[in-house]
Amino acid sequence: MKEKFKGLWPAMFTPVLDNGEPAYEEMEKLVELFISQQLDGLYILGSTGQGLLFTEEQRKKATEVVSKISAGRIPVIVHVGSLTTAESIRLAQHAEKCGVDGISSVPPIYYTGNADTALAHYSKIAASTSLPFFPYQLGDDSIPGNVHDFIERLLEIPNITGMKLTTNQLLNISSVHNQAGDRLKLFSGSDELFCHATLCGTVGAIGTFYNVWGVACKHAMSAFVKGNYTLGKEFMLAFQQTIEQVLPNVWTFLRKAMLLKYNIDIGKTKGPLGNAHKEWQDDQVRAILEKIESIPQSIVNS
Amino acid sequence: MKEKFKGLWPAMFTPVLDNGEPAYEEMEKLVELFISQQLDGLYILGSTGQGLLFTEEQRKKATEVVSKISAGRIPVIVHVGSLTTAESIRLAQHAEKCGVDGISSVPPIYYTGNADTALAHYSKIAASTSLPFFPYQLGDDSIPGNVHDFIERLLEIPNITGMKLTTNQLLNISSVHNQAGDRLKLFSGSDELFCHATLCGTVGAIGTFYNVWGVACKHAMSAFVKGNYTLGKEFMLAFQQTIEQVLPNVWTFLRKAMLLKYNIDIGKTKGPLGNAHKEWQDDQVRAILEKIESIPQSIVNS
Amino acid sequence: MKEKFKGLWPAMFTPVLDNGEPAYEEMEKLVELFISQQLDGLYILGSTGQGLLFTEEQRKKATEVVSKISAGRIPVIVHVGSLTTAESIRLAQHAEKCGVDGISSVPPIYYTGNADTALAHYSKIAASTSLPFFPYQLGDDSIPGNVHDFIERLLEIPNITGMKLTTNQLLNISSVHNQAGDRLKLFSGSDELFCHATLCGTVGAIGTFYNVWGVACKHAMSAFVKGNYTLGKEFMLAFQQTIEQVLPNVWTFLRKAMLLKYNIDIGKTKGPLGNAHKEWQDDQVRAILEKIESIPQSIVNS
Amino acid sequence: MKEKFKGLWPAMFTPVLDNGEPAYEEMEKLVELFISQQLDGLYILGSTGQGLLFTEEQRKKATEVVSKISAGRIPVIVHVGSLTTAESIRLAQHAEKCGVDGISSVPPIYYTGNADTALAHYSKIAASTSLPFFPYQLGDDSIPGNVHDFIERLLEIPNITGMKLTTNQLLNISSVHNQAGDRLKLFSGSDELFCHATLCGTVGAIGTFYNVWGVACKHAMSAFVKGNYTLGKEFMLAFQQTIEQVLPNVWTFLRKAMLLKYNIDIGKTKGPLGNAHKEWQDDQVRAILEKIESIPQSIVNS
Repeated sequence: MKEKFKGLWPAMFTPVLDNGEPAYEEMEKLVELFISQQLDGLYILGSTGQGLLFTEEQRKKATEVVSKISAGRIPVIVHVGSLTTAESIRLAQHAEKCGVDGISSVPPIYYTGNADTALAHYSKIAASTSLPFFPYQLGDDSIPGNVHDFIERLLEIPNITGMKLTTNQLLNISSVHNQAGDRLKLFSGSDELFCHATLCGTVGAIGTFYNVWGVACKHAMSAFVKGNYTLGKEFMLAFQQTIEQVLPNVWTFLRKAMLLKYNIDIGKTKGPLGNAHKEWQDDQVRAILEKIESIPQSIVNS
Repeated sequence: MKEKFKGLWPAMFTPVLDNGEPAYEEMEKLVELFISQQLDGLYILGSTGQGLLFTEEQRKKATEVVSKISAGRIPVIVHVGSLTTAESIRLAQHAEKCGVDGISSVPPIYYTGNADTALAHYSKIAASTSLPFFPYQLGDDSIPGNVHDFIERLLEIPNITGMKLTTNQLLNISSVHNQAGDRLKLFSGSDELFCHATLCGTVGAIGTFYNVWGVACKHAMSAFVKGNYTLGKEFMLAFQQTIEQVLPNVWTFLRKAMLLKYNIDIGKTKGPLGNAHKEWQDDQVRAILEKIESIPQSIVNS
Repeated sequence: MKEKFKGLWPAMFTPVLDNGEPAYEEMEKLVELFISQQLDGLYILGSTGQGLLFTEEQRKKATEVVSKISAGRIPVIVHVGSLTTAESIRLAQHAEKCGVDGISSVPPIYYTGNADTALAHYSKIAASTSLPFFPYQLGDDSIPGNVHDFIERLLEIPNITGMKLTTNQLLNISSVHNQAGDRLKLFSGSDELFCHATLCGTVGAIGTFYNVWGVACKHAMSAFVKGNYTLGKEFMLAFQQTIEQVLPNVWTFLRKAMLLKYNIDIGKTKGPLGNAHKEWQDDQVRAILEKIESIPQSIVNS
Repeated sequence: MKEKFKGLWPAMFTPVLDNGEPAYEEMEKLVELFISQQLDGLYILGSTGQGLLFTEEQRKKATEVVSKISAGRIPVIVHVGSLTTAESIRLAQHAEKCGVDGISSVPPIYYTGNADTALAHYSKIAASTSLPFFPYQLGDDSIPGNVHDFIERLLEIPNITGMKLTTNQLLNISSVHNQAGDRLKLFSGSDELFCHATLCGTVGAIGTFYNVWGVACKHAMSAFVKGNYTLGKEFMLAFQQTIEQVLPNVWTFLRKAMLLKYNIDIGKTKGPLGNAHKEWQDDQVRAILEKIESIPQSIVNS
């Protein structure tokens, strides 16, 4: 049953109309795109999907749209993290009715609290449905207090199934894996380290850039774990360099990249997210797109 | 015109009903209480006021209730920080219609971004009204990037009037004051250091514990700046010790303290805020209340 | 007996010859200067005194020189912190033979370890003499692990007498004072906050800039605790601004300031300390010297 | 010429006699051991080698002993970092006379300063000899200021040859490699991540645990880069788990492990290093030794 929770999952964009509402038609195109690319799952309405910037109703509608169009052809995890436990529970229960495959939540935000606060928040959200639950820890120090104690208490939640660990501190991932073993399906969330993270026990990766380069990344990960060390290394170094280059103006890059490559308009980000990002030239974006896509071929030919 | 922005302001609680909605009647009692205590202003719907945990409509309604009942008898600043710039602007414009005295906002949350992101967010919110604007920096490293550059750019916002600086790093406050002088009315936000902060150029303090001990704190601050060093010192040491003691379970303490002292029920916090705080005994709370209140008298008599 | 441990103590410079050895004659002049200024004590061979950059023999010789010339006219604490516990013990025992008033040590450096490591290090150094012992915590997070536990265990050291707390986190100072009370004579080590720190229970201050402005700072502290709030505030704001200004090139400033003001040459710092500091113009340094000295007078006249 | 700087290098222990002096005879045994194990080089007198805890004369003597006994059979890098630039220069020039292959230094310690301070320190040490120079950055944030600028300025040092990057932040390693390419031979210093780090461009690893498990680690690294993904992954997970287990009392573990496995006594650490580590039972240590050594075989057989 857990077998679907693995592989390369885009943290799917939620396209935005000029009036700030979700662009549901573009969203459907994204779902079809990722299914056609044979990516392994969709993680919707998380950080990349600007989940926290939409209203509760918009989040519910987006969940309905994605679950209806995907129709079981690809697994879907819905991020339900929000400022209040109550809203997260409503979103979780709605997601369950939509027939999605799992739910996920960031820890308390703004009023972050301590480990007790996070665990109480998670427990209530998890208990509100019977869906597989994936806490989403974001940041290098994101697990509060003693990591071993936190994981031990997390494992007491009956429907806990895995975690999204968005950290550059790979030892934290290994540590969680060494403790929890197969009981937690771990997804890495730092795109720059998705191959390295598999060495720490991750079964998959959820991230922003797989919206753009899902096929290349899936190929790189697959080849790497099968023993193509050179491809893994060269791909990751180039991928890291590219992400470092685009990060200061990442949202304008992503919009143009999706438009040029897939003719899908994800729209402007909802402020304050990306409100200071500068525009890119088409040629710059095309060159970057080309650079990443050409790596696997160049390794094969070398 | 700026003269009203000074002194001791409670970061006013927003009492909560069992169903999670604001308890507007209890809120009116709070306003009357603080007016009767001759406190210097009300900062509403901030971190203490759980502003971010209520819906936009609830925040607007709470603003209406406070502005109507206060009716110019005490200045009011409304915190309008939220996850999106758009919601903050709507809240700011609504607050202006209600006739409040100023607005305030935390920097971008969740998608925190860099200094450019924060300044773009602030500029748009400030530009949406003609009200005095008070950015609210929260945390020891809360000013992103180079502090001097950030303040310089902040001072370009026409209606910027002051800041709420919630930090234990007093040198940051001095540094902002040394740079901005009278152009920024600075309020400290670390209750534990409200007297110390006046030495760094603050004109007032906004904080949680002034809901409970507003009169004692106002007296201590006033005596201290007039030269009663001993009172300032002894009060602050005891106040710090008390805050350290109650902090692990602060919300259950605050609820009981307000109930025992003023017969006002601020209700349960909205989860995840305070969701793991343990209950206090009445006697414990009474002893703590008594301890703080007795300090000024004990100094006078010594 | 403990009464001598209070007031304003320069963290005395160790003047350096061109060949890198201590300039003992200039050092004697410094001792005479500070005695003539009626400063309250001398803290020698600490961070400001470049203790760790001299050889064990040079440190012993410098201790002999200072203890001989001071001859009981002013209390002396010798910093004996070093890379090994063994060297610190030898320095401590030598200092005791010289008849100084106390010893002090930073925690383990380089191999910093945890609270247990620090406490074992401190205990052995303290146990090697019967002198009053002053641990010197340096940095905002310098007390390892749980602060309360650390202080409790520190208080088990029989000859522990006080601490030098060089931190901008004033709440740490209050917390230690609230726990230890009169059992620990606390000295603040952040020059920028020496008046503020007295509100947290410090009995004195040890710092770099009292080499230059000892008289003015002693006057400001004394007036402040006697109720001259305005002098305390205005002096500290100007002092903080000045320190912020000179900090990027502080060592070249200090050398020139001591030369212009007292005709004492403290020499070049031993690299890497200060190896990238740019030179100052005489006029710049004179203006800064004048600015600080003129404050008390300007307050009196206002 | 640079080809010797690669592969698996123990950060060699400096065995210590009961009187605190280096145990030169045990040190010779270590050199012979690592040569017989065909490890790729020796990094001596670094953090693991307690370089900073010995006197200048002891460090020189240890360098002489190692260079004489190794006699060109294995490359040697000598760590010359110390509290003063002058001592580091003397150690560097002495190392050159001994005919070693390279020198290395940590940044300024205690008086850490900024990027300018570190670069001036490094430049002077590097310029004092014609040996290949390897700065040794220690810690996740160890490169001061802007990383790209720092590396650019580092590359201006003529004999800069590589770096020892002891960090768990792998993206820093990739970033340096993407910038410097073949001009810098990068060694990882986080033992727990030595295979992962090769994906970021490292050519080798320098670390503590290779004293104990050099053969197993060299085999794992070699197999991993040749495509044995499973061995790399399983070895690293077990290795990480083991390091996490022994770290709280690592020095008593290491002493007993070397004694049981190789009959070499590295002695007690020089305090404060390891002064609070508890003793291990022989059986515990034997079980851990066995666990790591059995991994490669178990993978081959699986």
